[in-house]
Amino acid sequence: MKASQFFVSTLKEAPADAEVVSHKLMMRAGMIKRLGAGIYNYMPMGLRVIRKVEAIIREEMNRAGAVELLMPVVQPAELWQETGRFDKMGPELLRVKDRHGRDFIIQPTSEEVMTDIARQELRSYKQLPKNFYHIQTKFRDERRPRFGIMRGREFTMKDAYSFDRDVATATLSYQNMYAAYQRIFGRFGLEFRAVAADTGAIGGELSHEFQVIADTGEDAIVYCPTSDYAANIELAEGLALLAARGAATQDLTLSPTPGKSTCEDVAALLGLPLTQTVKSLVLASDELDQDGAIVKTTIWLLLLRGDHDLNEVKAGKIEGLKNGFRFATAAEIEEHFGSKPGYLGPIKLLKPVKVVADRTVALMSDFVCGANQADHHFTGANWGRDLPEPDLVADIRNVVAGDPSPDGKGVLAIQRGIEVGHVFLLGTKYSKDMNATFLDENGKPQHMVMGCYGIGVTRILGAAIEQNHDERGIIWPEAIAPFSVVVCPIGMDRSEEVKAAAQQLHDDLQALGVDVLLDDRGERPGAMFADWELVGVPHRVVISDRGLKEGQVEYQGRRDAQATKLGLAEVLDLLKTKLA
Amino acid sequence: MKASQFFVSTLKEAPADAEVVSHKLMMRAGMIKRLGAGIYNYMPMGLRVIRKVEAIIREEMNRAGAVELLMPVVQPAELWQETGRFDKMGPELLRVKDRHGRDFIIQPTSEEVMTDIARQELRSYKQLPKNFYHIQTKFRDERRPRFGIMRGREFTMKDAYSFDRDVATATLSYQNMYAAYQRIFGRFGLEFRAVAADTGAIGGELSHEFQVIADTGEDAIVYCPTSDYAANIELAEGLALLAARGAATQDLTLSPTPGKSTCEDVAALLGLPLTQTVKSLVLASDELDQDGAIVKTTIWLLLLRGDHDLNEVKAGKIEGLKNGFRFATAAEIEEHFGSKPGYLGPIKLLKPVKVVADRTVALMSDFVCGANQADHHFTGANWGRDLPEPDLVADIRNVVAGDPSPDGKGVLAIQRGIEVGHVFLLGTKYSKDMNATFLDENGKPQHMVMGCYGIGVTRILGAAIEQNHDERGIIWPEAIAPFSVVVCPIGMDRSEEVKAAAQQLHDDLQALGVDVLLDDRGERPGAMFADWELVGVPHRVVISDRGLKEGQVEYQGRRDAQATKLGLAEVLDLLKTKLA
Repeated sequence: MKASQFFVSTLKEAPADAEVVSHKLMMRAGMIKRLGAGIYNYMPMGLRVIRKVEAIIREEMNRAGAVELLMPVVQPAELWQETGRFDKMGPELLRVKDRHGRDFIIQPTSEEVMTDIARQELRSYKQLPKNFYHIQTKFRDERRPRFGIMRGREFTMKDAYSFDRDVATATLSYQNMYAAYQRIFGRFGLEFRAVAADTGAIGGELSHEFQVIADTGEDAIVYCPTSDYAANIELAEGLALLAARGAATQDLTLSPTPGKSTCEDVAALLGLPLTQTVKSLVLASDELDQDGAIVKTTIWLLLLRGDHDLNEVKAGKIEGLKNGFRFATAAEIEEHFGSKPGYLGPIKLLKPVKVVADRTVALMSDFVCGANQADHHFTGANWGRDLPEPDLVADIRNVVAGDPSPDGKGVLAIQRGIEVGHVFLLGTKYSKDMNATFLDENGKPQHMVMGCYGIGVTRILGAAIEQNHDERGIIWPEAIAPFSVVVCPIGMDRSEEVKAAAQQLHDDLQALGVDVLLDDRGERPGAMFADWELVGVPHRVVISDRGLKEGQVEYQGRRDAQATKLGLAEVLDLLKTKLA
Repeated sequence: MKASQFFVSTLKEAPADAEVVSHKLMMRAGMIKRLGAGIYNYMPMGLRVIRKVEAIIREEMNRAGAVELLMPVVQPAELWQETGRFDKMGPELLRVKDRHGRDFIIQPTSEEVMTDIARQELRSYKQLPKNFYHIQTKFRDERRPRFGIMRGREFTMKDAYSFDRDVATATLSYQNMYAAYQRIFGRFGLEFRAVAADTGAIGGELSHEFQVIADTGEDAIVYCPTSDYAANIELAEGLALLAARGAATQDLTLSPTPGKSTCEDVAALLGLPLTQTVKSLVLASDELDQDGAIVKTTIWLLLLRGDHDLNEVKAGKIEGLKNGFRFATAAEIEEHFGSKPGYLGPIKLLKPVKVVADRTVALMSDFVCGANQADHHFTGANWGRDLPEPDLVADIRNVVAGDPSPDGKGVLAIQRGIEVGHVFLLGTKYSKDMNATFLDENGKPQHMVMGCYGIGVTRILGAAIEQNHDERGIIWPEAIAPFSVVVCPIGMDRSEEVKAAAQQLHDDLQALGVDVLLDDRGERPGAMFADWELVGVPHRVVISDRGLKEGQVEYQGRRDAQATKLGLAEVLDLLKTKLA
């Protein structure tokens, strides 16, 4: 294709509201154009990438035996009322009334419509398993859309839904999709990791996130470099870092720690390692009556080693906190601890609280903790002697790099990632809510076991750029680059030779099926090169009069530090090899 | 592909709400599935057709130099307020508020967003002409959605927008799109006609509709079989059917016509040809003050030959009726004519009215018309002698088959058509409303001249079926069939030979790039054949044990009355030829 027949529109500066690099670069490269908060036009350059991403997804979904269909963007509310999500989902769900005042929603996902199709179409065990997918426009009215198309409101998603007769076959369907996702993200040419994920509110059986590795990712992902272990930090199991509790060697001592309210400050003041300190966090859980009024509040003291952080997802799995919790108020803390925050601890409480110790804390001895007295901490605290054993010992912390891997095969490392895919064994939640049954061999109705599998099509673009860019611009992986090769003639208007050679190389590459662009815009070399480095085309060939006189052109890969001179025939061979 | 890996779901009976054949057959063939009024799931079989339609459109749009992008489904109201369409469009425009209470619309089309992109991106005459298109989900909240996806609420449309520096180049862009549409509809394999269309409220320069010919079409299209003339009946010019006015030969006579209030009845009673009668239609136009109160009403008498019908679009172009008109009330008629409808005429009026005679009526002599007296008509009426010449002579009728063609090259014929495409030279309406300008050679801002070009992607399916079906089902044109060939093995489970031959033929065809389906569902032959005739696959090969023993298989084209026996190698050659 010639640039003059396409649409190239680059910007020197990114708009002020672009915070992250992918957003900045996509705006500057003319890939997207803002229409409203979290709503973007996909410009020709960006749409080419989307189409390549979609094509790879489609190929691999089809290869995996999934069948494509297309569900509407505007969906009747009735189905969403059947599952209760019409009311339960917050303002993220865009609701709309038609001319007759009937309720509709703009789809954020399609479990309801898909389950409705399945309950009508899949009537016998003979029709199972079945996996349907679509690639469609979605809308989620994010409270604070940001990061360009990484957290936009309108976006394109591939969502697939599998239907099985039982959990055993559903697990096979899940594994099939997991394998397809491995192929898909592999083909994109992105560094990614499939990590075990929390199954959250739906409480399904199995869940993995596909995370594109990027320093700027919102998610922390935990993995073991010497084994297969990988999980979202929300889920990654924290083992006790001590083999057994040591014997008490110190007396419990009240130490003044004026103004030192953090473990770090206390450890520094006392000249002790941070790992000797214990952090106290106070939560509250409320029991409600049927009108939503609080009938009873329980106060919880969660104890973590000073260098560890609370994992709220894990805390939320504790019996008594499952239905929700909050941080305790200053008044509740004063009432139970007789102290202000910063000096709290498990010893000498005014009123009983539920004490939950992290696995490591439960094995600590001679530890430091708040004394429930302003500007004071205890040192030499020991379980059993100075305070009763905790009510509960649980894994309530985020793992940290260097922790032992839960599979016993090494130590954990942590990376940042951007979630671009999610596979989820849903079980029977939706099929029960919507009574989606099939008849088994005995003619008895059974609820279908479902899985759902999403890929954020447009988000992939952002994630790919967060992972692959430099100070000059985007560096697209080969498979999803808007163009594979750009041919840049210098002085095409002055030299027939340059024009002919550029056109010939373009035609030869196109004949080979290569996605090649001939930049015939007549830009100066500097501006032309800057454009294509910004856009991130993987391969560039520069053809100049001077070069041609020596029988040479210049080739430069997007990651190469400098150009290589070689003959026209050679550059074709080189590109054939590189693009093979 | 194997049927077992796909999803085939046919119905014996169409649902009761399916009125037209395409709706019935699409439902029965499992192409679409109703989700709500005018909202459909595109099932796997239907989606395959949609994808083929889209691919052809995309290829030809690209070939024509248009550049694809993608605009959002949910669009901010601000742009629609700039053009006034946010308020002016009725409830067809689906309006929605986001979580912050801001107004958005679900796009029915994208002139506003496109013009907004153009005014930001196209700044210089050097960037023009430019043509952008997208293929995207649209929504129009039709008052009465019907005919399946022919008049649904959510649908897929390709809409393109061209931007030019002046009307001359815009006309070239228009012609370029017109030619692309000719190629597109030609490639679909549909019988179609491009017809000149009324430019309506926008009042643009040029407009053509692309109509798929079908007896069930909603539109009447007029064409001349011996010339290029073709127009929508709304626009087709009706010439005077008399060369000149004949001399009066009869006296004006009041004839009793008791109970005969139609021209047909009066002509029959009097033993005169219908073409000797004149029909009177009474319209009213109201002048409003700025508060919308009526300040003056004009009564109009429109005269048509008895066998002709009023063309309201043409009437709406008459000076004085341009701003709208209505049929007169009974009271208004009584006041001006002193008679009830059915016996009205242009002679002996109580109060003055504006008399508009159709071109033919103005040349009639000795005609029959109502006498403004119940149960009476005049015969022998003559212009000038019995009544004054009309205030206006105009083309206000629908043409009828057999009329002379306006280009003088033959007589007109009329077909029914389904509008599936529309090209429109918009002029500067949107660019002026939204101040979309470019700088010309002199650095002066000029409004861009726009064209817009739509194709109803999903509607094509309905139109194709209305045109191509029989009592057994759909007959897809080759280019957009969900599958080109279906291989039907009989007794595949009993015979290894049948299984192997079917698989081999499938693999051979697939290797040739043919879209082939192997029906491995194990259905009985009758049910299997009925399914594929219903679905409308163009080519079927039946492989049976008995046939193979004779070295033969059976080939049948979807339009063939019966099957042909031939060898396996021969059938491959035959299909190669047919699919070439």
